[in-house]
Amino acid sequence: MVDDGQILALTGGVGGAKLCLGLASLVAGDRLKIVVNTADDFVHLGLPISPDIDTLLYTLAGRSNTEQGWGLADESWHTLGALEELGADTWFQLGDKDIATHLWRGQALAGGMDLTTITGELAKKWGVGAEILPMTDQLVSTLVQTAEGEMPFQHYFVKHRCQPAVTGFSFSGLTSAQPNPRLIELLASSAVSAVVICPSNPFVSVDPILQLPGLWQALRDCAAAVFAVSPIVAGMAIKGPTAKMMAELELPVTALGVAEHYHQQYPQLIDHFILDESDATLAPEITKLGMNVSTTGTVMTTLEDKKKLASTVLKLVEHC
Amino acid sequence: MVDDGQILALTGGVGGAKLCLGLASLVAGDRLKIVVNTADDFVHLGLPISPDIDTLLYTLAGRSNTEQGWGLADESWHTLGALEELGADTWFQLGDKDIATHLWRGQALAGGMDLTTITGELAKKWGVGAEILPMTDQLVSTLVQTAEGEMPFQHYFVKHRCQPAVTGFSFSGLTSAQPNPRLIELLASSAVSAVVICPSNPFVSVDPILQLPGLWQALRDCAAAVFAVSPIVAGMAIKGPTAKMMAELELPVTALGVAEHYHQQYPQLIDHFILDESDATLAPEITKLGMNVSTTGTVMTTLEDKKKLASTVLKLVEHC
Repeated sequence: MVDDGQILALTGGVGGAKLCLGLASLVAGDRLKIVVNTADDFVHLGLPISPDIDTLLYTLAGRSNTEQGWGLADESWHTLGALEELGADTWFQLGDKDIATHLWRGQALAGGMDLTTITGELAKKWGVGAEILPMTDQLVSTLVQTAEGEMPFQHYFVKHRCQPAVTGFSFSGLTSAQPNPRLIELLASSAVSAVVICPSNPFVSVDPILQLPGLWQALRDCAAAVFAVSPIVAGMAIKGPTAKMMAELELPVTALGVAEHYHQQYPQLIDHFILDESDATLAPEITKLGMNVSTTGTVMTTLEDKKKLASTVLKLVEHC
Repeated sequence: MVDDGQILALTGGVGGAKLCLGLASLVAGDRLKIVVNTADDFVHLGLPISPDIDTLLYTLAGRSNTEQGWGLADESWHTLGALEELGADTWFQLGDKDIATHLWRGQALAGGMDLTTITGELAKKWGVGAEILPMTDQLVSTLVQTAEGEMPFQHYFVKHRCQPAVTGFSFSGLTSAQPNPRLIELLASSAVSAVVICPSNPFVSVDPILQLPGLWQALRDCAAAVFAVSPIVAGMAIKGPTAKMMAELELPVTALGVAEHYHQQYPQLIDHFILDESDATLAPEITKLGMNVSTTGTVMTTLEDKKKLASTVLKLVEHC
């Protein structure tokens, strides 16, 4: 790469982590900064769990369970089995090694370390070169409004397997949370050449990040171009409940629907929208929203797919 | 047994648990009440750990690792291994299933349940018939004074493997702790026919129980006879640092030394002292302390040994 500016990726868990893995395999560690949603963090059985951060760490460290799609490889479940026998809540699957991560984080938090430092320490211990930044060090909690009432995100997502019909979302603690100071510092340094909104869930992964006080405006106003990759391909979400949510929210379940959402919520933020080649017919409508549009293969199954999409994104960055 | 009065055992961990297992195999569950030292309870990696209670629960539930002498049978160590990789404190060995116990207890404590109720719930879940009572629901912490300075008990016991020479003990929180209300209720009910001080460490297992405000006096003044079984046999402790501590405290390392310690600290508390037949020559001196004395085999290696000593104790109780 000629360009040696920094790439700032905004991401949720699994879907976004795929692109981040692709980027990490092409970009030197000190050029890649990954801002991770923490609005689905929660405390379970007394353990502070940061699902999206852990997915990023495990994925970039080469420790993730790629077959299962979440958690660690070579995991065992002895603690969970014993908890089940005791009648504890075991709807959130915690592997034995995963529990070690949460115990370690809990100790560090109790000792006064902030989540950013903790995440940096874990990245260092596990040989992750990219800088992984929680979107904030303060506690933000997603509440999902559904036809069955309001519920915490992990209850909706894991316990109820995304079955209740969604009517809206709120993010408790968001308006008083501060965007990660390191992120603000990066934006002020002018070293960032591009912001990449990963193909994560717009409503529960990307929105909480962008809705941190002042953040989306700062991203819009910085010199770096802002790219977004559609998480919707041919009317379906590759992973997770994005498509189901869009249908329930009566939004068009298309890449255009995603672009419109970002356009309405964050006017003039996105410079460049990337969608799957199978959705090429949507490009003219997205262009009308004031975004440059590129089509490419966005479905990431293999590591090669991830590197290929990352490479396409990086090429677009270079030509900006 | 003709007698159907209750047996109230006071115990620490491993040594005392052996006699309690013997008693539990001979006495109906509702007749056996076991008061357990909690002065070595501590919080480790954010987990509330009650080593002696867990030893009793695991032992009476038939779940203890009898070869290892502590912890659970069929245990695995995946969380601990991952914690070690993260550089966490791993001097206290926590097995995966054992961690489930502590997580469950932590959740229950956080929900406002007291340690007595928690212990009762665990006993019920694991089919333990005897009533297992923490000595108190308040936090008491043993501090060990040593030639290398004062240290928390588990640091002395596990981290430093009892190596520092002991000069004394203190029990933080003890003077403001309340004896378990259920224990007070049992003593007031006149249903207790005997109190059995198990062959546990007098200084760090039995003393904290007896030094709870008003407790030893209540035991002395109740109608039940008080028995004590020597943890020292032929100048050695069967298990743990009792003999080493007595030598460092310049006490005679004999069953007589144990009897004298109890006699000095708790005058007229003990009615009947039981020592090993190999120490029979000490009996006359112990008699002079105002205690009845019996000699029997007190070394408990097999389950038969445990039942035999328990049977001997129960026969003495009947003849009181």
